[in-house]
Amino acid sequence: MSDQKLEAIAKALSKARSVAILPHLNVDGDALGASLALALALNSSHCQAHVLIEEDVPATLDFLPGQDLIKRSPEGRYQVAINIDNGDINRLGERLAVYQNAEIRLSVDHHATNKMEADVSYVDTGAAATGEIIHRLLTDYMGAPITKDIALCLYTAIITDTGGFRFSNTTPETMVIAGELMKTGIDFTNANKKVFDRISHAKLFLMKQTMNSLKLLFDGKLAVACLRWDDLSSFNAKIEDSEGLVNIGRNLEGVEVSLFLREEKPGLFKGSLRSNEYVDVAQIAEKFGGGGHKRAAGFSAEGDLDDIVKSLADAIKASLTGDA
Amino acid sequence: MSDQKLEAIAKALSKARSVAILPHLNVDGDALGASLALALALNSSHCQAHVLIEEDVPATLDFLPGQDLIKRSPEGRYQVAINIDNGDINRLGERLAVYQNAEIRLSVDHHATNKMEADVSYVDTGAAATGEIIHRLLTDYMGAPITKDIALCLYTAIITDTGGFRFSNTTPETMVIAGELMKTGIDFTNANKKVFDRISHAKLFLMKQTMNSLKLLFDGKLAVACLRWDDLSSFNAKIEDSEGLVNIGRNLEGVEVSLFLREEKPGLFKGSLRSNEYVDVAQIAEKFGGGGHKRAAGFSAEGDLDDIVKSLADAIKASLTGDA
Repeated sequence: MSDQKLEAIAKALSKARSVAILPHLNVDGDALGASLALALALNSSHCQAHVLIEEDVPATLDFLPGQDLIKRSPEGRYQVAINIDNGDINRLGERLAVYQNAEIRLSVDHHATNKMEADVSYVDTGAAATGEIIHRLLTDYMGAPITKDIALCLYTAIITDTGGFRFSNTTPETMVIAGELMKTGIDFTNANKKVFDRISHAKLFLMKQTMNSLKLLFDGKLAVACLRWDDLSSFNAKIEDSEGLVNIGRNLEGVEVSLFLREEKPGLFKGSLRSNEYVDVAQIAEKFGGGGHKRAAGFSAEGDLDDIVKSLADAIKASLTGDA
Repeated sequence: MSDQKLEAIAKALSKARSVAILPHLNVDGDALGASLALALALNSSHCQAHVLIEEDVPATLDFLPGQDLIKRSPEGRYQVAINIDNGDINRLGERLAVYQNAEIRLSVDHHATNKMEADVSYVDTGAAATGEIIHRLLTDYMGAPITKDIALCLYTAIITDTGGFRFSNTTPETMVIAGELMKTGIDFTNANKKVFDRISHAKLFLMKQTMNSLKLLFDGKLAVACLRWDDLSSFNAKIEDSEGLVNIGRNLEGVEVSLFLREEKPGLFKGSLRSNEYVDVAQIAEKFGGGGHKRAAGFSAEGDLDDIVKSLADAIKASLTGDA
């Protein structure tokens, strides 16, 4: 039973002298927030715990407390290693050896696709964030006090993976936990601002280009926007800078389908499709060798932009009018 | 004591045969959500309750249930009239007579500036939304079941006034109430999408113009953007379409002060100032005959745009460098 697993994890952590906490590569707010919360709790009691990451802390998370417990090293020998918010061994990157060389390997995650091997692996797919599980572990199984610093880490973990309590993975329990964390007096307004509002210079440029390129077809039901290779390369943009740009078209009033094309290399496009109410964009993406869900899908395409847009628009038109 | 007032309001509503529910002019999600929730509860028991408004239901709120209980009429005779989310008698508009002609006048609000006259007036400035107070009234004082429809109205009221649980008025109690409402199975994801994500065509155009006009000064610490009269008039934009555009500059990495100018009439500008960490923009706005708070202020200015920007930039420069 799951609760026995959490108990076993709590027991192993409580006895440990040194713990390596290993969030997935390219840490996000849930992976890093959950990891730092655990590190802060462990260090305040008895043991030396470090969070090992291989990249810089993202600027959106620079306010998280406990960053002195982060080691930017893929090496070290720890008695216990705990994998956090990660279902795929490849996402341990160069830290795999740290995990494998530990006497005890633990894993806590909420991804349905989790395939991690561990001495004890706890996966709760009902948890909106791994931060929720760490909150439960600390309060119900380890009796660790939730300090203001720990609360800020866990709150950030939760808002990251729920889109600020907006995604459908959010549960009444999520709200109750967040309320408990807020009682410690954390500056949750600042956390939300940092995680959700910050715009990088590259992102602003790409938003502008996306909006300037946006065209409406079929009585405004299809929005088409693109970012060309020159746009992306000229500003040294990262993948995260163009994330979510497909939603500009999707959120525009009257739009049912949003098509967003990003030229990854000259002549090579990555396409994103979103729909609002009734068009099955997975079906459309499949026609172009891609796939996904009814309301969110993707594909790749090579060639001339105008030709690609024309083929897609033709396929989408059929779905909009029901002639599919 | 406040609780006695809520009890008196509950008692008056429980006995009423007809109730006019009066949210403030230009209804937002809190005023309309709280009003519809109350109307749904009252109609399901014993009395005829209508929500009286003078404008169209905003497109962002078209998903709210209970809209058949809305009357677009400033007239009618009701036994009880209840003022909702409104501290200013002028914001009853042409419905003032309905309020004044009722046998019993009630008022429920959360604004600190509330000055409404009523037989019983309940103001809780600690409530993040009037929807929270209506939730308490229905559950603790009237024993009214919170149906899924009522829950959706109250949830929408709460997210509107808390910016989706992000503003500093959000309390642990807010989170608990929202969690309770979610338990009824409401489509909270759709509510958030409607309230926060929808972009009107005019708004997209103004966002684009704002981004295209945005300039950075003083090593990127000051962002200046403007919307010209031609932009605003050509697209038949409403005030709400340019709301929040000052935040594009404010959210840009490295920016401390964002200045946004909107040309309301040819040569007449409304200026918005926002800061992030340390500049007191109220002081700057005051120099130009305006005012506000440390991190959010405004002013009006007449003349040539370049001259206005230059004067403001000079004043802001002093604050950025500490030479004020």
